[in-house]
Amino acid sequence: MPIFKEKNTMITENRFGGNGSVVTTHVLDEELYNGQIKLYSMTTLKPGCSIGFHKHEGNTETYFILAGKGEYNDNGTLTEVTANDTTFTADGEGHGLANIGTEDLVFMALIVNNPK
Amino acid sequence: MPIFKEKNTMITENRFGGNGSVVTTHVLDEELYNGQIKLYSMTTLKPGCSIGFHKHEGNTETYFILAGKGEYNDNGTLTEVTANDTTFTADGEGHGLANIGTEDLVFMALIVNNPK
Repeated sequence: MPIFKEKNTMITENRFGGNGSVVTTHVLDEELYNGQIKLYSMTTLKPGCSIGFHKHEGNTETYFILAGKGEYNDNGTLTEVTANDTTFTADGEGHGLANIGTEDLVFMALIVNNPK
Repeated sequence: MPIFKEKNTMITENRFGGNGSVVTTHVLDEELYNGQIKLYSMTTLKPGCSIGFHKHEGNTETYFILAGKGEYNDNGTLTEVTANDTTFTADGEGHGLANIGTEDLVFMALIVNNPK
């Protein structure tokens, strides 16, 4: 399988009611995962930007923080996150994430669909 | 679900016949994924270290390079990889990775099991 150097990057505004832009760079085409993975990306929130609170149904989402300082909303509980922190949203739970620092907040996002 | 700040880090020597050490930091406990994910880690190869060539059966593996310079063995074809490159090893294929730079080679590794 070739190595993928080109990336599919998407910019979305006010994601789930959040502030500003979310830059989502897909690690690869998720179709390679036979429907098991909905999203695998490196995602960037610039200072002041956020992903609004939202719930997951039928899948889980893992964030792994690479750089920056965020405020993570874990089912309503706010916690500061920095590089090397992991967050996990189980099926039926909800989360959100805001960049509260002065540098880009960069993280890996992985959405795994429930088995069919 | 709580946020995971502590990490399970493993150091293995001469992985698949490679040189030196492989430092594998698990993003979280893979049991949370109901058997769908075998490994999700941030992995580091110090200069001169490598993961030897090996085949995948019953799963796929994706590397996403975060930092450093590597020589990737894709089924026998050698390619240089650097930050932002993705490699994908399909079920039945093989790969290996060597740090050929002067800095740490850091990458995300994701092994997805085939559907049961």
